[in-house]
Amino acid sequence: MARLRGEVAQKTIEIIKLIAERNRLAERIGSVKRSEGLPLDDEKVEDELLRKVLREGEKRGVERQLVAKIVSSLISEAKRTQGQNPGEGRASPMSVLTKVVKLQREGKKVIRLDVGEPDFPPPAAVVEACQEALKGQKTHYTESRGIPELVEALRAYLKSKSHFDAKPDELVVTVGGRFAVYAAIATAVKEGESAMIIEPAWPAYKEQIEFVGGKAISLQTRLEDGWEASAEMIEERIGPNTKAIVLNYPSNPTGKIVKPSLFREILEVANDHNLTVISDEVYDSYSFAPCPSILEGGAERFILTSSFSKTWSMTGFRVGYAVCDGRQTAEKIAMLASLMYTSVPEFIQYGAIKALESEEEATRNREQMRERIAIASRELDRIRGLKYYRPDGAMYVFPELREESFDSSGFADSLLNENAVSVIPGTGFGNYPRCFRISLGSPKEVIVEGIRRIGEKIA
Amino acid sequence: MARLRGEVAQKTIEIIKLIAERNRLAERIGSVKRSEGLPLDDEKVEDELLRKVLREGEKRGVERQLVAKIVSSLISEAKRTQGQNPGEGRASPMSVLTKVVKLQREGKKVIRLDVGEPDFPPPAAVVEACQEALKGQKTHYTESRGIPELVEALRAYLKSKSHFDAKPDELVVTVGGRFAVYAAIATAVKEGESAMIIEPAWPAYKEQIEFVGGKAISLQTRLEDGWEASAEMIEERIGPNTKAIVLNYPSNPTGKIVKPSLFREILEVANDHNLTVISDEVYDSYSFAPCPSILEGGAERFILTSSFSKTWSMTGFRVGYAVCDGRQTAEKIAMLASLMYTSVPEFIQYGAIKALESEEEATRNREQMRERIAIASRELDRIRGLKYYRPDGAMYVFPELREESFDSSGFADSLLNENAVSVIPGTGFGNYPRCFRISLGSPKEVIVEGIRRIGEKIA
Repeated sequence: MARLRGEVAQKTIEIIKLIAERNRLAERIGSVKRSEGLPLDDEKVEDELLRKVLREGEKRGVERQLVAKIVSSLISEAKRTQGQNPGEGRASPMSVLTKVVKLQREGKKVIRLDVGEPDFPPPAAVVEACQEALKGQKTHYTESRGIPELVEALRAYLKSKSHFDAKPDELVVTVGGRFAVYAAIATAVKEGESAMIIEPAWPAYKEQIEFVGGKAISLQTRLEDGWEASAEMIEERIGPNTKAIVLNYPSNPTGKIVKPSLFREILEVANDHNLTVISDEVYDSYSFAPCPSILEGGAERFILTSSFSKTWSMTGFRVGYAVCDGRQTAEKIAMLASLMYTSVPEFIQYGAIKALESEEEATRNREQMRERIAIASRELDRIRGLKYYRPDGAMYVFPELREESFDSSGFADSLLNENAVSVIPGTGFGNYPRCFRISLGSPKEVIVEGIRRIGEKIA
Repeated sequence: MARLRGEVAQKTIEIIKLIAERNRLAERIGSVKRSEGLPLDDEKVEDELLRKVLREGEKRGVERQLVAKIVSSLISEAKRTQGQNPGEGRASPMSVLTKVVKLQREGKKVIRLDVGEPDFPPPAAVVEACQEALKGQKTHYTESRGIPELVEALRAYLKSKSHFDAKPDELVVTVGGRFAVYAAIATAVKEGESAMIIEPAWPAYKEQIEFVGGKAISLQTRLEDGWEASAEMIEERIGPNTKAIVLNYPSNPTGKIVKPSLFREILEVANDHNLTVISDEVYDSYSFAPCPSILEGGAERFILTSSFSKTWSMTGFRVGYAVCDGRQTAEKIAMLASLMYTSVPEFIQYGAIKALESEEEATRNREQMRERIAIASRELDRIRGLKYYRPDGAMYVFPELREESFDSSGFADSLLNENAVSVIPGTGFGNYPRCFRISLGSPKEVIVEGIRRIGEKIA
């Protein structure tokens, strides 16, 4: 036994030695790259390596997940020795929020075109139901996946809206859509695996994929292509250990909705490669073109994430949900909710039931957003040099100024400090230094005034 | 370049080969262990290996965190090849909750002595403040660490209660105390590192440590020692990569409060070994013996976690907080909150401010809990063969029946199904198959009736 253990220790030390040798090689590659001005990242090389090593692991009976994890750790370590910083800061909507809120608390009046939060009031029935539930001492822990009444109401809502017949154990109510997305990613992607996102994209997707130890494969789309990625482009970027793709239509930040036919093609590619499709449909009620839903079928593995935040303007209630392709996926998501926060506040769940019945408010919000998109587009059309995709939905415009010298981070800073208008720089959503995001969460006069100031600044 | 890359691939493949060889050795060790009836786990051997390999890594410039992660992955893989199942199910309070709630929804009347949820109403001022805030459209995203008004109120509360002068950027408001604990653990413990818990303990500690890829070092205490672990016992179990210790006084499930002198000794050991002390003081208002707090000083690295749930009976509001040893720790916690759920519902934060002023309700709840402990103890004293530690605080009793044939899981099941009394089996809190937890969250008549039925069943 002692001898066997000694051998195990010896093997482990040999592994560490090899890692050290590997690092030395990586350092040399790094200096060659630098001297030749080559990018440090090389997806194709990394994929090729992973493919080889996964094969080797399979041959030798080492668990695939372990091999993937080790390779991804080794690659990160190699990058570290090459002098790369992991997770270099991107401007996120929330960091801008913090800056703006601070200015506002200091008494400064800011035209808020930053955070994706509609200014509409929440439905009166929701507020009343929460108040009633508070009074009735609905102030206890609940099932992690949500009280049965809310799950039932959600089922009925999905059935009537999307003709989708979810089983009760396929739904999970979550603390906001954000947690639903996190849990979906954590469920679909393990360390050393990868997930594709179509950029520009809500920064949380990438942050959450990296947080769970995954690699985010960023597929960049361009304004001149109508922010569209073809099924071929997607298929080409799928790596040897890609497990999921995140879709988000209507899109934050572009307002893009892909045609249902393209959506179906993407689902086919996903099926061909056994990917889980995480479809974040949080803006679906703000659709002004036919918007495909994952619930219409076509995806073998999927998790829909959504929320009450946009449709009924309930951001500060923090209630969202996930609809899963089966009981097992939902159980994993509920396990994460249970592990991290037990349940959504009980009285808020009673309020959420009423939201699902608040069709009138949903329609009113939707029509206002339609009008805001029209007004914002009219104002943006007046700004020379600024190009944008006219949103099919959601609540943002993502214009681009194609000038060499334009840097949207500096622009956003200066716009906030000098013109008291807050927008989010494009780098928050991917490699888009010439773009910025305008949110339409504020009343139309505010949007008009904000865009006019943007125009004056750019002129 | 191509040659260098080829060498990198070659080294990587060699690493995988070594892992496979290591697995073969582990398999042989596994079969030797089985044939000799030895336990598969051997902390001392694992620690020795880790120590050696960390030294080797340091010598060769491989990052410590990577070495730790690789060793822990290899050990897990070795255990897998030896036929061990990671994370074998423990009965958690929440899974019992689900079972009981289901029975109740079916119309069955259950005497609830399971979940740690006081039945007291939340303070009227809290309910009103939430209702007001809802009416006033305090229904928006907020700073992830909490609105400044609540942070300020918390500071004042901590100052008056514990004479602790927290800086505003050392506090983070969280979705329940559970998230505060998760975030504290995620901040202090990385994959391949370990954290100590003193068992019996709230199951979430272990689950969360394992969830972040850490190893939970379970220090078992015994009823005959008054559920006490000496500083020496703690020091002896600290491994080569132990980063944190979780303390929880008053304790769930035992009601134990350690003497302030022992608490200080434990903090000294923690300091000597650079451990972060995660002190979960969620039950501090239910203390009926002098209860030491981490805020009294003595720990160099600490995170206090707490909640509004017990003191003011606000479980279903899901609001807790973390107090950190500095800005950087708090920022990491706030980052996790921001990544996963943005913020606590805004109107709930306004309610929480009022809770901090609700001294009368806190005192009333506290006095009722004191009475319940007395009553439960009186009833338990009547049951022959049942031993227990008379709680110094918290809201539970954790009795033990020292009979070979007694299995508390089967007992709890049968007690629920046949006698309609729900308790949590001791295996939910560590290796305590002869113990079970009685919660005092129900009115005293219910507690009395429940314990009488337990007595009848045992007799």
